[in-house]
Amino acid sequence: MPKISIKGQTMPESPIRKLVPFADAAKKRGIKVYHLNIGQPDIETPKNMLDALKNIKETVIEYSHSAGILSYRQRLCEYYKKNDIHITPNEIIIAAGGSEAILFTFQTCLNPGDEIIIPEPFYANYNGFAVSAGVTVKPIISTIENGFALPPISEFEKLITTKTKAIMICNPSNPTGYLYSREELEALQEIVKRYDLYLIADEVYREFCYDGETHFSVMNLKDIENNVVLIDSVSKRYSACGVRIGAMISRNKEVMTTAMKFAQARLSPPSLGQIVSEAAIETPDSYFAMVQKEYLARRDIVVEMINKIEGAFCPKPKGAFYTVAQLPIDDSDVFCQWLLEDFNYNNETVMLAPATGFYSTKGAGKHEVRISYVLKVEDLKKSMICLEEALKVYPGRTI
Amino acid sequence: MPKISIKGQTMPESPIRKLVPFADAAKKRGIKVYHLNIGQPDIETPKNMLDALKNIKETVIEYSHSAGILSYRQRLCEYYKKNDIHITPNEIIIAAGGSEAILFTFQTCLNPGDEIIIPEPFYANYNGFAVSAGVTVKPIISTIENGFALPPISEFEKLITTKTKAIMICNPSNPTGYLYSREELEALQEIVKRYDLYLIADEVYREFCYDGETHFSVMNLKDIENNVVLIDSVSKRYSACGVRIGAMISRNKEVMTTAMKFAQARLSPPSLGQIVSEAAIETPDSYFAMVQKEYLARRDIVVEMINKIEGAFCPKPKGAFYTVAQLPIDDSDVFCQWLLEDFNYNNETVMLAPATGFYSTKGAGKHEVRISYVLKVEDLKKSMICLEEALKVYPGRTI
Repeated sequence: MPKISIKGQTMPESPIRKLVPFADAAKKRGIKVYHLNIGQPDIETPKNMLDALKNIKETVIEYSHSAGILSYRQRLCEYYKKNDIHITPNEIIIAAGGSEAILFTFQTCLNPGDEIIIPEPFYANYNGFAVSAGVTVKPIISTIENGFALPPISEFEKLITTKTKAIMICNPSNPTGYLYSREELEALQEIVKRYDLYLIADEVYREFCYDGETHFSVMNLKDIENNVVLIDSVSKRYSACGVRIGAMISRNKEVMTTAMKFAQARLSPPSLGQIVSEAAIETPDSYFAMVQKEYLARRDIVVEMINKIEGAFCPKPKGAFYTVAQLPIDDSDVFCQWLLEDFNYNNETVMLAPATGFYSTKGAGKHEVRISYVLKVEDLKKSMICLEEALKVYPGRTI
Repeated sequence: MPKISIKGQTMPESPIRKLVPFADAAKKRGIKVYHLNIGQPDIETPKNMLDALKNIKETVIEYSHSAGILSYRQRLCEYYKKNDIHITPNEIIIAAGGSEAILFTFQTCLNPGDEIIIPEPFYANYNGFAVSAGVTVKPIISTIENGFALPPISEFEKLITTKTKAIMICNPSNPTGYLYSREELEALQEIVKRYDLYLIADEVYREFCYDGETHFSVMNLKDIENNVVLIDSVSKRYSACGVRIGAMISRNKEVMTTAMKFAQARLSPPSLGQIVSEAAIETPDSYFAMVQKEYLARRDIVVEMINKIEGAFCPKPKGAFYTVAQLPIDDSDVFCQWLLEDFNYNNETVMLAPATGFYSTKGAGKHEVRISYVLKVEDLKKSMICLEEALKVYPGRTI
């Protein structure tokens, strides 16, 4: 048999997917599994998007422009303007999800062998896109004690070499839910300017901010317009992950011209997804108010119930719909598998994501799990009771 | 400004797109442009696919399985069975178009620095995916005199080094329309087996075979089951390019396991596209009969009219909806631009793709153009008259 690529073999496996067979087996044994392991929201997609599908008049489903349908990019500019981000259609390339936007950005802005600094824990698939583009991730640990705030700028400076080309953040963060303050972003702006680096910001959870906090976009940082690349997606905003529509946005003309070559090689982003995403611009504010209220209630119940568990600790994140909690366990990979394989409470158990998968540093995250609060409050309550009961009997309990 | 990636800068520009501004300018001057430059068919998408959109019951557009919706992969197996290709759902990864399937295949099967042999002229975007994956394309010229038949196996052997990992073909071919015979494929089978290479076959034009010829798939070559990867797409089959649904197919378990890691990193192929593509399996045979009849008439008129032009020559391809014609011109890039910039016949002109973009060998294809016969017969006739008149006055005419 021909030898498989080294590149393919170094491609990391998704930290969440590896538990799926254990969840499937648990279900076969008749156990109800609460899925807090994935970012697939249960919230309904806005009706105006679904209606757009029913009203499609085209008789040929054609390729769109490689950068995306122009009318969609124009409407998107309206959306951004409402969010105090001022851009033009030429500064947008529509991608097959935020995923493709990240890949295009890495391929455009970094050479194979170049380094990108990312505060960890970070979204695990950044590792996959880094392998695809041949670039090296240099992690900086942010700690649960500080609620996963931005590490000191001096820590970034320690890592900067001649190979460093970019800093990447996710704001608000998957997996921590941490919302960066304007001051933190301005600290990043300074270092980006000083060392002439790219600042790549994944802002797909922009709408999910709590406790009266507002989101500050990297697109509004001054003096580094040519250094900033924004990654966006409609997946979480409208609970429409399956449409696979994201965007790569930058004011740097050379970056966009180069990224367009990658976009043209794959011809076109999905046309149907673009049609419903264009319709999404009409989504009423009441939809977001409803969603935000729902997630706030979910976050509060999860954080409150975890912090009542002996030996457990959970910061109160101000964004996204994730939180990373510290648990009195020896190894989160073992624990999360044990929850599915060997535990149930009244025939119920909970599926969590081991935080190890969100760290690039070996051994980090062993006492932490990521919880996606994408279920209804009643189910979250039952899940947290499950977790509490599990920790009482888990053989690898540490304290 | 931060330095753009070398990778990004070596990414080739699409040979077709660079003429778009000239076509736009011609249209602004009131000139009708016949687009024979692109592979966007004008044929209608089957109604059963469009109806599926109107019947969508889901209220959340969710991620699908990373390999694609299981029911879709099951139905796809029925489609393949009908085409004498016998595979299981686990041997299929649904991708965002044939494009993503090619990228996954290159990333999985080849290391950065590895070499892939491709008979040229070949589909220009293979170059782009090769750059993305960091692999090197080694072209072998097939000649118009032989109707672009498979070059002698001895020519392949001359190119094989320790870095050679794969041979890639497109059958029937974009851009030449050449349909490989079973004997040619068996010759490839032998060399693939002898040197233990991958054989990657892009068969997206499977349905488009003329003159009573039938398509023989690489999936039916014996003894090299683990070496074969099939690239497929619904784009051309159902005239549904915008749905962005393709597939990577292989019986090699290790290849599929590795490719799944790339598939999981980008989470999911487009869900809406999968729903309509599943509905596409119901497309009646009468649709394909109608389409084939239409393209056959188009091919015949194009080939006949070109061969009547003094100094021009066009083989009669047996597949796809492209043909490469030799014209009495100094430089196809200059000629194709001149057609848009400086020529019109009764306020009409024609947009063709210079064949240079389909060759990897510098200087090859200067006297050839690719013609996509994706317009109605009447328009093709007018286009060919335009071409004939243009060649009478083109300043760079060679004979």
